Formats: sequence, C-alpha cells, structure tokens
Amino acid sequence: MASQVNPPRGMRDFLPAEKARRQRILSVIMESYRSHGFDEIETPVMEDSSRLNAGLGGDNEKLAFGVLKRGLTRDELQAAEQPLDLVDLGLRFDLTVPLARFYATHRAELPNVFRSIQIAPVWRAERPQKGRYRQFVQCDIDIIGEPGIQAEAELLVASLATVDALGLADATIRVNDRRLLIGMLAGFGFAPEHHDGVLITIDKLDKLGPEGVIAELAERGVDPDAVGAFQAFLTRPQTREFLPFGERAIRRALPDGADASVIADLVAIGEAVAAARGEEFAPLVFDPFLVRGMGYYTGPIFELAHPSVPYSLGGGGRYDGMIGRFLGSEVPATGFSLGFERLVDLVELPTASGGAAVALVHDADAPLAALLTLQSALVARGDRARLVRRAKNTKLQLENLAEQGFTSFAFLGADAPSELDALELRPLD
Amino acid sequence: MASQVNPPRGMRDFLPAEKARRQRILSVIMESYRSHGFDEIETPVMEDSSRLNAGLGGDNEKLAFGVLKRGLTRDELQAAEQPLDLVDLGLRFDLTVPLARFYATHRAELPNVFRSIQIAPVWRAERPQKGRYRQFVQCDIDIIGEPGIQAEAELLVASLATVDALGLADATIRVNDRRLLIGMLAGFGFAPEHHDGVLITIDKLDKLGPEGVIAELAERGVDPDAVGAFQAFLTRPQTREFLPFGERAIRRALPDGADASVIADLVAIGEAVAAARGEEFAPLVFDPFLVRGMGYYTGPIFELAHPSVPYSLGGGGRYDGMIGRFLGSEVPATGFSLGFERLVDLVELPTASGGAAVALVHDADAPLAALLTLQSALVARGDRARLVRRAKNTKLQLENLAEQGFTSFAFLGADAPSELDALELRPLD
Repeated sequence: MASQVNPPRGMRDFLPAEKARRQRILSVIMESYRSHGFDEIETPVMEDSSRLNAGLGGDNEKLAFGVLKRGLTRDELQAAEQPLDLVDLGLRFDLTVPLARFYATHRAELPNVFRSIQIAPVWRAERPQKGRYRQFVQCDIDIIGEPGIQAEAELLVASLATVDALGLADATIRVNDRRLLIGMLAGFGFAPEHHDGVLITIDKLDKLGPEGVIAELAERGVDPDAVGAFQAFLTRPQTREFLPFGERAIRRALPDGADASVIADLVAIGEAVAAARGEEFAPLVFDPFLVRGMGYYTGPIFELAHPSVPYSLGGGGRYDGMIGRFLGSEVPATGFSLGFERLVDLVELPTASGGAAVALVHDADAPLAALLTLQSALVARGDRARLVRRAKNTKLQLENLAEQGFTSFAFLGADAPSELDALELRPLD
Repeated sequence: MASQVNPPRGMRDFLPAEKARRQRILSVIMESYRSHGFDEIETPVMEDSSRLNAGLGGDNEKLAFGVLKRGLTRDELQAAEQPLDLVDLGLRFDLTVPLARFYATHRAELPNVFRSIQIAPVWRAERPQKGRYRQFVQCDIDIIGEPGIQAEAELLVASLATVDALGLADATIRVNDRRLLIGMLAGFGFAPEHHDGVLITIDKLDKLGPEGVIAELAERGVDPDAVGAFQAFLTRPQTREFLPFGERAIRRALPDGADASVIADLVAIGEAVAAARGEEFAPLVFDPFLVRGMGYYTGPIFELAHPSVPYSLGGGGRYDGMIGRFLGSEVPATGFSLGFERLVDLVELPTASGGAAVALVHDADAPLAALLTLQSALVARGDRARLVRRAKNTKLQLENLAEQGFTSFAFLGADAPSELDALELRPLD
C-alpha cells in the first residue's frame, strides 16, 4: 500500500459533484454581474514581485507565494541576503493589485468608466485552519473612473441582486464611510497619528465588545480624554440601535458635527438602491463602527451580512488612491468582493435543469459500435450519456448513478440495438 | 507619464471581448465533453515539488516554476546547493501529473472507470516566442481504469464531436500505436537501446523530410543496416499514401510482420468511431510514423490535424504505466488533450444568443434612482443593461457600444422615467 498522497497543505481538490456545485454558483454570480453591465477580464496568476510588494496589499503582501527566479547558479543562491533577492514573480494574493496593474497596462483600450468582473483564484501562505485555504476563489466587481456615488449605488444593486439570485434571502449590507470614521475620531480628540491604530481596535468591536474596545484603546496609550469621550458615545443606548437606512438613522448613529455632505451621499445611495429594488428601504444598515481592514479605503465602505452566519460574506468600498498607483495618476475606483468560499458553504441552488442524463449500462460483450452510436444519438438530441460497464451489484450501481445525477438507464448486452428508437430507457431515482 | 507597465514576460491579460470569446469556446468544449459522460474535476495549481519532479513530465519538468519555501532565513538561503533545495512547491506544467496525484488521493471515492475533464491553466518557463506563452490553458479528457479500446473509441468520438461543435469542419485524427512503432524498429534491426533516440528522430519527419530523418539517424551512430532497411521502407511510394482508415490502410502502411492484434484493435476503434458518427469511414488516418513526443505512451496514440494549419491541434494516447505511479499500482489510462490556445486562433463561433444588451446613455443630471430602477427592470426581464454617461461625441460612443455587443440604447436626461413602459429603446447596430 502506498503512503497517503495529498494535495499541498491548505489546498483542495474538487471531485465532480463539488466541482459542478461550485461552477453552478460561479455562473450564477457571473451572469448576474454581467447582466448589470460588468465585463469579465483575466490577468495572469503571477505578477512581478516588485508590484505585489508595492505596499498596496497591506498585511497580505507578507503572505504572497514567491516564485524562484529561473536558472539560478549556486553562487547566486548563496549570495542571497533575503528571500526576495531570489524571486522575480509571485502568486497574486488578491485581485485588486492585478487590477491596478491591468488598468495601467490597458488604460487606453478601456472605456472611461470601466466595470470589471474578476472571478479567479488567489493564493495566500496562511497557516491552514478550518475554512481558511491557501488557494481560494475571489469574486470582485469594480467600477473604475466614476468619482460619484452612482458607482456605489450600482455596485450595491448588482451585488444584492446577485445575492438574491443565489437564494440568500434576508442579506443586509452594513454601510459606513471612511470620512465619517476619521471625522468621528478627530471629533473625539484622537490625534491624527493615532487614527490607524484606533481604527484597528474599533474594527474588533464585534469580537471584543464595547468594554474590550475601550480597554484596548486605553492600552494603546492614546489620549485618555479622547477614549473617555468615545466610551460615552459607544455606550449610549441608541448607538447600536439600527434604524431603517436613511438620514434619520445615520444622524442618530453619529456624534454631532458629522460631515453633512457625506451623510447626504449615503442617503442618496440608499434611496437609489431602494428604488431599484422597488422597496421602501434598501437592505442597508448604517454602522458607524464598520472599519473594513484595509487602510486604502477613502469613501463609502460596505460589508455583506447574513443572519445565518456571524461572519461577513463579502464587502468592499471606495479606494480612490490605489488603482492609479502604477499609472502615476489618481483614478477613482470602488469595488465589492463576494466571499465565494463562504457563500459555497451556505448556498443551495436547485440543480440546473437540462436534458436527461442517461447511463448506458452494458455488458462486456455489448458491441462497441452500437454503444457509441447510441451515445452519439443521445448527445445529438441534447442528453448527457455515459457508457458504464455493468457491475456485479447492479442495484448498488444504479443507486450510485442516480446519486451522480443520472436520470435514466438501459441495460445493454450482446444484442444491444444501435438505433435510438429501439433503446428502452428506464427512469433512475 | 509612468513607464510602460506590463504583465509578466510571456503571460497575457485578456480584455473583455477576448475573455468572452475564450469563455464561449471553453464552454462549448466543456458542454460537449460533459454530454459524452465526462466529469469535471479541479486540482490546485501547485503540487509538491517532489511530485512535479518525479520523472512523469519528461522535458517539461525542467520548465516548472518553483515556489520558494516560506520563512527561509539567510542561513538557510546561503546553505542551498541548488535551486530545488529552496522550493517545496511548483506550478503544474501539465494536467497529467496532477491527475495522477488526484487519482492516488481519491481512488476510493471514484468510479472504477473514471472519465475526467480538466480545463485549466498550466505554466512553463519557456523562452517566450510567438504563439508560446508561459501561462496557457489545456483541455484534457482522460479515461482511467478501462484497459480496452472502448476507452480510445470514446475519447475519439467525444473529441471529434467537440471539434465539430467548434465549427472546425475537415479535422482528422492521425492514429498510430506505440507497440507498432516499437515492433517496426525491432523488425528493421534497431537495437532496443537505440529505440528512444530513433523515435525522437522519426518524430521530426514532418519537419526534416525522409532524407533529413535518414541523415540524422546515420549521425546517431545506430546500426547502418537497420537505417538502410528503414530508408527503403520510408521511401516506398505507398508509405505516405493515406487510405481511408481500415485494415487495408493499416497493413499497407506497415512493414510485414506487424502485430495483428494491435492492428485489429485500431481497426475496431475506427469502425466504432465511424458507426457513432454515422459515416462509412471515421475521420482517422493511420500514420506509421506518428510518435508523439512523450515517452510514457504504451498503446494507441493520436494527433488532431486540420487542413488550415500545419501544426497539430491536440493529441493524446494510452499511458498505462503512469496514473498509478503515486498509488504504487498499475492503472490503465488513456487521454486526449485539445490545444486550446491554438484552437482559439482558428475558431469563429457565432456570438451566444441571449437577451438584448441595453445601454442606458444618461446625462449627469439624470436621477440616479430612475436609472437604477430602469436597469433592474431590464435585468429582471432577462436583458443585460449598463449605465453609460453620455459622451460629447455621441455618434462615436454609440458606435463603440455597438461594437461591444450592445443591441439597443436610450438617451436619458433630467426627465428620465423610472418605468420600463416609458423607456424608448432604439436599436444599435
């Protein structure tokens, strides 16, 4: 007996049933985004190492798999001071850095406002744990070149429609704006140099609770008066009370003095999304403590939530400074990413309807030409057809075929007909 | 102006139009193979380096991109004697090594005869040149666990139907059998230790011509009598005269004494393929000099040819020794691989028919809620819809939209309706 053979650590194979399920979910997502006017693009799985490590990827940069330069001599190997000296390429850790590079390469060939879909694997050398993989699929849409809130409204309408198409009722999107967050911190008296750290702590509110957040802020050594003011705000009864998304909800959830034009933008996004969905209120929730990890966000930010799970199913936001980095100019951009691997665990789509799937269960002496002729005739009429050698335990075999999605079968022996008309199909279930 | 930004050397981006074209061709291939009873699987893009370098990949092993181990210290780097000391993973250079690993991992969960589809990218660190890329897509089908010619007949029927579905009329498949090749070399008196080298030379027949082949064989220092006998055979008038595929054609193309049971197998494959296609003769050609590069083939081998191009569009064959290598037992297997990147250049499929594609061309003051409501209503009725800011040069803009596949448009201003009934769509062409 050979020893256990496995795929690389943290990476997965997909057997036919699971692969088919994933493909079906992907195609629902793709079709929904395409119907909302987005276009699919593809970039190579590798990018130049210098671009992957240009500071756009935050902590994920450290998780990039590096690709060894080709043809290195022993002397070159031994002259290396650090791993990056030996790599020239890396596997992408997200789809945003490649999008920025793609946009810089093809700017002249793209429309002024470019709506992209990227559904593709990314790789991170994370410590494998339940639900975390080293190769996983991301589903990103981005709108590049549109500075106004039309972009955000489009993203949200398309993403909510996609979630609907996946059969996930009751999804909501938590909304905040990076500028409101910064304004709030400034209002409470946090010094600008502490904002990043304070946001990292606030980002843990769901995990730590208000007391935990205040305790961690105190440990950070930031101004105690600011912490005290923030604590008073955070523990107001109405602060975590979510009203239907609109001006009243947003104002009530924020301290006084919040930027009125940012609030007006969020209200307008909510109204447009509600109108598009034919609902009185959009399935949006204003959350003044929503941070989203990445430091590159500059405007409205989003996180997709569903009552069945405690974690987010996706999210995104505006990141105006980033797409233009490789181009050397500022380009407005906003994006939304669905957490595909988490959705796969939740979504139960009905099997795609299609033609019948026929198992031609045959004995060893069934004439090959007849079998293949029958198969081709079935395929020609739109069915799926597989030749299957008859097993000793026919009952179990038929059960297995039914489980694999076959809908009918025929037993074929030495006298197998080669005419479809003479084929007697029996249902499988 | 920033300097030129490009994808990594030898790798490509795909813009929306090309991406859509590729996806359409891939889905035709996938549907055709699925309808013939094959099942799609997926493996990670990386495999353990030791498996990629286990000798199953021939010359391609040298072209594997290696992935640097994570967290290497300076001392570990400088202790390296050779590049492989620093890598633990590599990007797959084909889909056959991963299939062998997959089969070893999941043997117990797979049917006795397993028909797999793998359509996925592979990577080779080749010197980039026209038509050769460092990331490219392979389309492989394999039948594992079936020792008989039923497997070959199924592969050929499914692959020819796929080529038909791609609209490539007049494709033929050149057929030979590795055992006939070896028998022929032995018959002419080539010593067994020279067979591999002689086959490498014969494989160049299309390029070098008969004289070139004989000259190169002479240079190899093999037995001159064997070369002389082979030359006499190679230059017979009837040797390169291809008859309709059948026993007469095969016998006539071979020297006397060829293995009758192998010939009978090939004839039976041809008859079954012809029957399945409802044709008198299958679109197969017996080619006694077809070698197929890889040394792992053990039985019938194939190569897909089309009159419009001088190179092959795919191929495959039986490789009984290989799939079981990681399992430690012999498992019969045969496969066929379509050369996707070459097919993409040849195939012109009509655009997928579907709902209309509507461009909602709007002014800056068109109400956002109305625009998104119209878009959602169009999507709900099955159309594709995109919001497009009206450009100064409207004529050019409409031409561009038509080119992108949009079939109708409307101009929308401050008075844009939010009811679909009130939307006046005009055709684009």
